Amino acid sequence: MHPLFAKHQATLAAATAATAARGWHSPYPESPSRRHHPPGARAAGEAAFAACLGRDFALDTAGPPRGWVGEEVSPYTGAPLGIRSPDPDPDRTLAAAQAAMGPWAAAGPEARIGVCLEALDQLAGEVFASAQATMHTAGQAFLMAFAGSGANALDRGLEAVVHAWAAMERIPARATFTRRFGRGAPVTLDKRYRLVPVGPALVMSCGSYPAWNAWPAVFANLATGNAVILKPHPDAILPMAMGVRRLRAVLAEAGFDPALVALAPDTRAAPVAMAYLEHPALRIVDFTGSQRFGRWLEDHCHRLQVYTETAGCNAAVLLSTDDLDATLHAIAHSLCIFSSQMCTAAQNIWLPATGVETPTGRVAPAEVQRRLVAQIDALVADPAVAAGLCGAIQSPAVLDDIAALRAAAPAVGRVLRDSAPYPHPDHPRARTATPLVVAVEAPGATLHQREHFGPMAFVLTAPDAEAAIARAADEAGRFGAIASYAWTTDAAQQERVIDAFAAAGASVGLNLQRQLPINYAAAYSDFHVTGLNPAGSACLTDLAFVARRFRVVQAKLERPAPPADGS
Amino acid sequence: MHPLFAKHQATLAAATAATAARGWHSPYPESPSRRHHPPGARAAGEAAFAACLGRDFALDTAGPPRGWVGEEVSPYTGAPLGIRSPDPDPDRTLAAAQAAMGPWAAAGPEARIGVCLEALDQLAGEVFASAQATMHTAGQAFLMAFAGSGANALDRGLEAVVHAWAAMERIPARATFTRRFGRGAPVTLDKRYRLVPVGPALVMSCGSYPAWNAWPAVFANLATGNAVILKPHPDAILPMAMGVRRLRAVLAEAGFDPALVALAPDTRAAPVAMAYLEHPALRIVDFTGSQRFGRWLEDHCHRLQVYTETAGCNAAVLLSTDDLDATLHAIAHSLCIFSSQMCTAAQNIWLPATGVETPTGRVAPAEVQRRLVAQIDALVADPAVAAGLCGAIQSPAVLDDIAALRAAAPAVGRVLRDSAPYPHPDHPRARTATPLVVAVEAPGATLHQREHFGPMAFVLTAPDAEAAIARAADEAGRFGAIASYAWTTDAAQQERVIDAFAAAGASVGLNLQRQLPINYAAAYSDFHVTGLNPAGSACLTDLAFVARRFRVVQAKLERPAPPADGS
Repeated sequence: MHPLFAKHQATLAAATAATAARGWHSPYPESPSRRHHPPGARAAGEAAFAACLGRDFALDTAGPPRGWVGEEVSPYTGAPLGIRSPDPDPDRTLAAAQAAMGPWAAAGPEARIGVCLEALDQLAGEVFASAQATMHTAGQAFLMAFAGSGANALDRGLEAVVHAWAAMERIPARATFTRRFGRGAPVTLDKRYRLVPVGPALVMSCGSYPAWNAWPAVFANLATGNAVILKPHPDAILPMAMGVRRLRAVLAEAGFDPALVALAPDTRAAPVAMAYLEHPALRIVDFTGSQRFGRWLEDHCHRLQVYTETAGCNAAVLLSTDDLDATLHAIAHSLCIFSSQMCTAAQNIWLPATGVETPTGRVAPAEVQRRLVAQIDALVADPAVAAGLCGAIQSPAVLDDIAALRAAAPAVGRVLRDSAPYPHPDHPRARTATPLVVAVEAPGATLHQREHFGPMAFVLTAPDAEAAIARAADEAGRFGAIASYAWTTDAAQQERVIDAFAAAGASVGLNLQRQLPINYAAAYSDFHVTGLNPAGSACLTDLAFVARRFRVVQAKLERPAPPADGS
Repeated sequence: MHPLFAKHQATLAAATAATAARGWHSPYPESPSRRHHPPGARAAGEAAFAACLGRDFALDTAGPPRGWVGEEVSPYTGAPLGIRSPDPDPDRTLAAAQAAMGPWAAAGPEARIGVCLEALDQLAGEVFASAQATMHTAGQAFLMAFAGSGANALDRGLEAVVHAWAAMERIPARATFTRRFGRGAPVTLDKRYRLVPVGPALVMSCGSYPAWNAWPAVFANLATGNAVILKPHPDAILPMAMGVRRLRAVLAEAGFDPALVALAPDTRAAPVAMAYLEHPALRIVDFTGSQRFGRWLEDHCHRLQVYTETAGCNAAVLLSTDDLDATLHAIAHSLCIFSSQMCTAAQNIWLPATGVETPTGRVAPAEVQRRLVAQIDALVADPAVAAGLCGAIQSPAVLDDIAALRAAAPAVGRVLRDSAPYPHPDHPRARTATPLVVAVEAPGATLHQREHFGPMAFVLTAPDAEAAIARAADEAGRFGAIASYAWTTDAAQQERVIDAFAAAGASVGLNLQRQLPINYAAAYSDFHVTGLNPAGSACLTDLAFVARRFRVVQAKLERPAPPADGS
């Protein structure tokens, strides 16, 4: 048994059990509290981040870099990070990746799994540094950057390792096969089964939440023997560069070629993805980002295995509740948290025209709208609270989109709540924006039928509760949804909600209000993208995500016949 | 637990264990000996087949059939079977299939697996009849039709059920999730996971060996909740029609809609596959047949999951042997058995120019060729033996291909052994042909670099043993191979053979000579298509074959907060 497999066997076993039981589980610290970390860990992480600023990021590449790229700007300070990463030659990078895959594949599943688990542990050990990197590129608030892009993302990575292990450990390295053919003596064959990775893979991470999707893809590929070229979003290179550096160090320490994980940074002006996507050596692409590019990949990259996690117009269907303000607080919280820049954020809030049923009677849509706005206002009133909740706006383009939606609102309805910056207490130049909420009133309006990335939401009214369910589910199926939400106290209606969303190929969370954020997707418990609607194909968390990344080549060797005379 | 799951649980458990141990296993009788069957089973099967001849095949369809089609001709008698099957309307068939999938999916994995296992048992119970149907359409000899298209094919189907069960049983129907969010009391969510099939699927079976590939695809689809439209090759409808009738009866008996399995027969003149492939309702295609159509599916049907099992130019590399005549007998046997109409038949026999090493010294290629021809001659000399071994030629086109190769031979080398009919003792009008063997002598000849379906083989000479390995493996990687073979008594060279074929993405059997036929691929033990060379993508026998045929949709429901005062 490989020593790293032995070292982490208990972690693997516990995560495997969690994936079966699907309750809460995590081997990684989700809290930055000093109780869970060595003394000085936070300060050391901050210092490690600060040490990256204003200089070139040291990372070996396959051959000399073509240049150095990087133009990240902190959403908090507005200042360029001043970090450049080496831009490797794609031909050399893929050639090195292919060459590195030979010994990596030959090492076998246990060695690879062991190295992956060690890498996850070591990544967990530098979350204080990577959280700073995530904050100052993606714009996440510290706690989210620490937990959501730390433990939660590593848990998703571990989950991919669990599934990869499950798919591979079913196949023994060797077997003995004996049977009679015709009337002869039994024949024995020694069989060997070799797992052959299909990669290399390109993993394209997103700008707002890079780690959460990157680690599942990176570890699904590595565990099954594939080399990874990680192409980060040009706005969020640093957290991925830190991860790549750590992964390469772990691989080298374990005696493998660090070329198994390479970084392919680029800029908006000179994107590099196509050089890899069109390269004959590439075999897999894992993409997180826009529905448009995800669909382009699915429609055009037929030579590749394509796994996508894109976007949808997530619904929140509010029909009845035991506690209207608690429910509206949960919805408002989803619109505010990380300024609605999560793939699981609610966007389209559906109300029955007949009103929302509550213990004190039906509440008319206008009143629900008013109280929703009040909940949002309350959440963002205190800048310190707003800062911890909303974080910053990842890209200036989001502010443009907010302005565009504000201008478009009168054509479809009206603005219920306008967006405005909030003053960040620590970072006066932070790019911030509170939610813009638009009531859609024009029949046939379609503005809400796509993702509006950032703090933008719509309130829609359907004739009655059943119509609200039907319309929300229909749009999830047609335009995509990664997470949908509904509130109803009626048990039979709950079943209809579940059935309607399932028929549309969409998952749904019901009556979430004490689980805050409602956006939270739990590793080992929640499946992610269903693959049944336009929000993408990569569940991230099932066997389908790993089972095709390797194939089986076998050899069978017939044993010579025993001597006829028994000598 | 569903009663059929309970009934067949031991079968599932034993097959699951066999898939892990990968030794010999089968719950179905491979031998037609009366010891293994009820009295009169063979006669009853023959009578059931005879009762099908000369009449319309009764099979319910979704709506009235558009017509009745069927033009199968027995390769043994040369006479039309006179059987027509109903040609259903594709729109109605797919609509009925989709409608049937709802309750089938909702029934859950245990019910579906139970029904599949029952269906396999019932199919095993009518192998005497289906063997006659396979003989008189595909042209297989009786023993092959009984074992290879009976138990062996059903074993492959059961293997698909095992993998589907493994992929599904990992996902519980329900789970309870409890954790704290922030400083609040623990929150509990009830979660449900629904397996949603992605189908319907079109299964396109081949003319020469329909059951062996159809059953894995049919059962992989059914087990995961998908309806199946089975489109048989127009030359081999009857064995599939019998299977579809049995499957529909089992489904109906278990309370499910028989529309879950439909037959879509056609003729060469009016092929029906495109009506399904281009239909927006179709989601999966499982294809067995030509490399050309398989590649067309892979290149054009991007909307579909495409699984292909096509063809290659399987090599037999003969370098050294303890018993040259036994090895040549094994190769000759592979060229003769079912007239080389199996996807695992050897085609390109590679020899080192330096000769084949034997216990009595090196044997020059010319002498090896002579003795190979002598082995073939011996195998086909006795018509009764030839009949049992070679069976009949599935299609008249094969005879055309033999004639074409005979004519082309002088341009690339010479005919070592000509093909000729052998007189079938029971069926004087049988379409038969013994192997045509061509020595390839022209440098740069490419004629052998594709499958020649039927009793055609090439003998090629490489400068030395290592060159023979390299060329055979290279061509497997470039032109495809489903099975490759090599003989060498040198342990180090065995490793080089295994590595060279693995690097080309091809499986290899070494020193097979007591396993007769060498073509034999053992369910539960041998993986099939690797997916790493042009011979197709469908392993048939791994998780990758099943894991994407369903997706997971989840619902999570937050439990209300407990009353604050504990009352």
